[in-house]
Amino acid sequence: MLRVGIIGASGYTGVELARILSTHPEVELTIATSRQYAGKPLSEVFPSLRKRVDLVCENPAADELAERADFFFTAVPHKTAMDIVPPLLAAGKKVVDLSADFRIRDVAVYEQWYQAHSSAKLIDEAAYGLPELYRDQVKDARLVANPGCYPTSITLGLAPLLREKLIDPSTLVIDSKSGTSGAGRGASVGSLFCEVADGFRAYKVGGTHRHIPEIEQELSALSNAPVTISFTPHLLPISRGILSSMYAAVSGADEQQIQQLYEKTYADEPFVRVCPPGSFPATQYVRGSNCCDIGIKLDPRTGRIIVLSAIDNIGKGAAGQAVQNMNLMNGFAETCGLLGTPFFP
Amino acid sequence: MLRVGIIGASGYTGVELARILSTHPEVELTIATSRQYAGKPLSEVFPSLRKRVDLVCENPAADELAERADFFFTAVPHKTAMDIVPPLLAAGKKVVDLSADFRIRDVAVYEQWYQAHSSAKLIDEAAYGLPELYRDQVKDARLVANPGCYPTSITLGLAPLLREKLIDPSTLVIDSKSGTSGAGRGASVGSLFCEVADGFRAYKVGGTHRHIPEIEQELSALSNAPVTISFTPHLLPISRGILSSMYAAVSGADEQQIQQLYEKTYADEPFVRVCPPGSFPATQYVRGSNCCDIGIKLDPRTGRIIVLSAIDNIGKGAAGQAVQNMNLMNGFAETCGLLGTPFFP
Amino acid sequence: MLRVGIIGASGYTGVELARILSTHPEVELTIATSRQYAGKPLSEVFPSLRKRVDLVCENPAADELAERADFFFTAVPHKTAMDIVPPLLAAGKKVVDLSADFRIRDVAVYEQWYQAHSSAKLIDEAAYGLPELYRDQVKDARLVANPGCYPTSITLGLAPLLREKLIDPSTLVIDSKSGTSGAGRGASVGSLFCEVADGFRAYKVGGTHRHIPEIEQELSALSNAPVTISFTPHLLPISRGILSSMYAAVSGADEQQIQQLYEKTYADEPFVRVCPPGSFPATQYVRGSNCCDIGIKLDPRTGRIIVLSAIDNIGKGAAGQAVQNMNLMNGFAETCGLLGTPFFP
Amino acid sequence: MLRVGIIGASGYTGVELARILSTHPEVELTIATSRQYAGKPLSEVFPSLRKRVDLVCENPAADELAERADFFFTAVPHKTAMDIVPPLLAAGKKVVDLSADFRIRDVAVYEQWYQAHSSAKLIDEAAYGLPELYRDQVKDARLVANPGCYPTSITLGLAPLLREKLIDPSTLVIDSKSGTSGAGRGASVGSLFCEVADGFRAYKVGGTHRHIPEIEQELSALSNAPVTISFTPHLLPISRGILSSMYAAVSGADEQQIQQLYEKTYADEPFVRVCPPGSFPATQYVRGSNCCDIGIKLDPRTGRIIVLSAIDNIGKGAAGQAVQNMNLMNGFAETCGLLGTPFFP
Repeated sequence: MLRVGIIGASGYTGVELARILSTHPEVELTIATSRQYAGKPLSEVFPSLRKRVDLVCENPAADELAERADFFFTAVPHKTAMDIVPPLLAAGKKVVDLSADFRIRDVAVYEQWYQAHSSAKLIDEAAYGLPELYRDQVKDARLVANPGCYPTSITLGLAPLLREKLIDPSTLVIDSKSGTSGAGRGASVGSLFCEVADGFRAYKVGGTHRHIPEIEQELSALSNAPVTISFTPHLLPISRGILSSMYAAVSGADEQQIQQLYEKTYADEPFVRVCPPGSFPATQYVRGSNCCDIGIKLDPRTGRIIVLSAIDNIGKGAAGQAVQNMNLMNGFAETCGLLGTPFFP
Repeated sequence: MLRVGIIGASGYTGVELARILSTHPEVELTIATSRQYAGKPLSEVFPSLRKRVDLVCENPAADELAERADFFFTAVPHKTAMDIVPPLLAAGKKVVDLSADFRIRDVAVYEQWYQAHSSAKLIDEAAYGLPELYRDQVKDARLVANPGCYPTSITLGLAPLLREKLIDPSTLVIDSKSGTSGAGRGASVGSLFCEVADGFRAYKVGGTHRHIPEIEQELSALSNAPVTISFTPHLLPISRGILSSMYAAVSGADEQQIQQLYEKTYADEPFVRVCPPGSFPATQYVRGSNCCDIGIKLDPRTGRIIVLSAIDNIGKGAAGQAVQNMNLMNGFAETCGLLGTPFFP
Repeated sequence: MLRVGIIGASGYTGVELARILSTHPEVELTIATSRQYAGKPLSEVFPSLRKRVDLVCENPAADELAERADFFFTAVPHKTAMDIVPPLLAAGKKVVDLSADFRIRDVAVYEQWYQAHSSAKLIDEAAYGLPELYRDQVKDARLVANPGCYPTSITLGLAPLLREKLIDPSTLVIDSKSGTSGAGRGASVGSLFCEVADGFRAYKVGGTHRHIPEIEQELSALSNAPVTISFTPHLLPISRGILSSMYAAVSGADEQQIQQLYEKTYADEPFVRVCPPGSFPATQYVRGSNCCDIGIKLDPRTGRIIVLSAIDNIGKGAAGQAVQNMNLMNGFAETCGLLGTPFFP
Repeated sequence: MLRVGIIGASGYTGVELARILSTHPEVELTIATSRQYAGKPLSEVFPSLRKRVDLVCENPAADELAERADFFFTAVPHKTAMDIVPPLLAAGKKVVDLSADFRIRDVAVYEQWYQAHSSAKLIDEAAYGLPELYRDQVKDARLVANPGCYPTSITLGLAPLLREKLIDPSTLVIDSKSGTSGAGRGASVGSLFCEVADGFRAYKVGGTHRHIPEIEQELSALSNAPVTISFTPHLLPISRGILSSMYAAVSGADEQQIQQLYEKTYADEPFVRVCPPGSFPATQYVRGSNCCDIGIKLDPRTGRIIVLSAIDNIGKGAAGQAVQNMNLMNGFAETCGLLGTPFFP
């Protein structure tokens, strides 16, 4: 049994990691840290875990931490992660980091969108943990940068088209919608039930969301050329789920060929499900799972392709994908603990 | 007091009309028709109306109908409307029709997207009931075609840019999201609580929604040139509200100039509210009102403008706008009965 | 025009007061205070108010405050209210206080459930602002204690039965459910969207909610004998609305007689709507209004009556009722500004 | 591998059974029937099942049906079940029936609340499938009547108190609240999103819900005396979850003793979780699981105990419990396939 620790267990990603790991046959959760709730049972912070996860939140010193597990998930804010990860690696541990700190290969870009980076040399060795694109690198990595939720939904959605150069990247418009768990568990007025429920709005309008450089990095890599996108995130009155609606001018293939391209690309991927022609994804069909559902449609009137992709933002968009990476890094079956069918209704 | 009738009172547009008219000082609701609920008090169909609206649903013959009121709202499905409206006009009544039947000026286009039209000659005389664009025509009309919900949010959102030729219409991508009341009150599995709640999806993907010809008609009129759009509607897990996110390549003006253009355009419009710079609309801020909130932002990285507009789909998107048209057609103050502040939370 | 001020305008009760007053023909809103948002337009705090309420939040000194309006709503937490109200009264103003500070007649009881009272002598002169029970006292009062939301729904629901001594008060079990706006606009984890949505729970279990002494005071007054209740509040995943389900052993009347008693009691009340036999209230049918809907049913198997009552907790349960009281205190029509039909859907 | 069939797979219980069985290591789902969707892949009816459940809905004749699996779940309406079950048993199959048809031991009572029973002699041999109470009978049964959702939450909640005679059953008031999936997947106006969302109401008021005889049967068995209850169900604007709030006069034990009684009673039950003192259940903490969470509190002011119990109505209230029964009937580990931690948020 692999001894696993969750650093930053009291957020929504933390509880989802604990939920998934609680039935994972290859691992034992040995430590969960939380500054705020140190001393409290994790199942008191999240009563959903009662009789299933029997750990008390701790706040140990860095060196004690390393002794308590062999593998770590760091589910802490960016900036904090770059300080916590290096000593864990130095102690010979493997890490999946769920922050943004090791996702952006170009430090200058990172520092432009976030802040100064104190562990820049680790960026080079970090694998970008999107297994469908970087499976081999993940297998060999001791540090995996777990992708952002929006980047996951968008990169998987556009990869086949960009690789085959079937769309003009300069025409890309990406309109994404996320559930509120993406805003985290911090107490803020903007995330209150009464502010979000029965409503809908955009945020970070005008190309200012910090996931943009990450998305552009991955789309550029797929295109083998620099890609600049229009990206607008929106806030949905649901807890879990992202739907990204992506538009681009297409040429060189008709709808049937594109459908077949997607089906072929993802045929053997256990977590990517291509919708049959005429069907489209919905967040409620991936809820609580590690699935990414993708549907495509060509608008003959405008010559634009519409790609729709849905994930659970704390599943495939965070904790699920992190466990998928852990599986690969440790030689477990990639799907271990992750084949739960989405919850509907 | 103007005697007013609602034809098709048992849908969500019907109950919203009844709600607004119940406190309108210039009118008296004298008849509400419903085939399904004939003989039942309207307040039994919609208990929200108890002690406020004291009418029994009826299903009278056409000629009796005309005698019972001086002004009619026809809130029936398209195709039905084109049969009901002509005898009312022939009897000297004025009508606001909330179906699609008199919105499309080009009968051929109508018949391509809907079905054969039996009252095509009335199309010419119908005014398109978007007062912010066609106030004078509405005032003089005996038949007003009340705009669709999506078209209202989109046309008001794009009018200033198109008129001033500041965007390239061929780059227009419109991603709209609507509350579930837009799907009507018919019993269908797809509109069940458990199918919609806690979820999100697109529908009518690929340029197939019937509001497209209406939207393109209005955008073309504003541009003075044919406009073809990418339009994708989505279903929100809320009852009321539409948010449209609109993207286009902009040139000839910077963000500040565009902001000023919007503020100037809508300065005297009581129902259009331009958000201050850096603020954006949300459906929860227009809920239950006749307001249309609009916010704009230029993405300097891509040169695209993003316009966001929010309405209540059964307010400004249907019943509210219909009453605004009624006010104009009868010489009442345009805002009469419609100045209720949106209800939040 | 009566000049009106809202003290504590940045909460959900504050915005609902502003919403109602924005179309009230007899008053002008002249000041809105908020410590947190002083200097910001109220329509920036609540964008629903754009183009409808044109006030900037202020935080004036006590004596300046009194000069700025003739009538005040104090929508501040208990304890704060008892300090703010006395100088306003001393300056000759009238006040509707929405806190608990002047609701409990017996200071000892107040101090047992809340804390020491610094303005106890004002309690005696305060009228309890439930107009359906205390209309005459309200008319003559310069200070009205606006009832709590749960007490309003419960007292109106049980008044006819208790007055006629048709139920045994010792058997009263009251199970109430409230929307989340009742928890206020403070940033707390427990009120986050993700904690409340798609869920349901009880709180303050075991007779510990502070509305209990207020409820018992009113039920005892109606019974002319001390009443002790079992009361459990629950948190609904909705923004607005309270439904109280009340159970008691009944004797001396059958269902039909009780139905008639309710219909007669509330026949002339504009805001209390008794459901027809076999119909029952729902929060969605009183949403956004000052209505209280009541339905009753006798369970012949157990001899218990079930009374169900629904209000909008920030309407009749707070701001709506406060305006109703203001109307009475100033000789306006009691229904002025309050006859808006509930919003459904 | 046990070959398993679901009869009536196109409802919410059907999809939840398919979800659970899709990862159950001891069974293979070999047939799913649906009259309405015969010929369609089940994953087209429920896209959540894509790439996880690969079955086409069928509508076979009774004798063919029996050949296709060794074990059956009948998830059909009452009345239909009593016709479908006997031939399956006759063919040597085991059955968990999720309808009401075999739950009520006294045929006269069944016929009073439902309709005439055509397979009354099977009632005697059916085990009532609440394993926490009837584990041994379930193990030996070839037909198990899976309990109703409300009865499950209530019986588990009250069993310790009734067995120990600590409450007076004649004082029992039970106020239950259910998610909308309990209303099924039939297209009806009352279950539409816009009718349910952002609202709350009671239904079947006055002791008329058909679960009452089932609840009373079980409570009477526990009490060893006839129990008659006040029971009011309510409809929550959530998809999954039941919370029952139960009130009764208590004597003979204090709160601490009762807390200990519950903890002891359910210490070894994997699916019943007793909340620590001062904590109470919430539907969001059992979502998507087979758990029943129970919390208790004594109200010293009234001498009443309040018991709160929460389940997922299609988990422990239907499909989860059905699989638990299947496990017992086939000698599998009782928890097999059911230890998934609830998903929160």
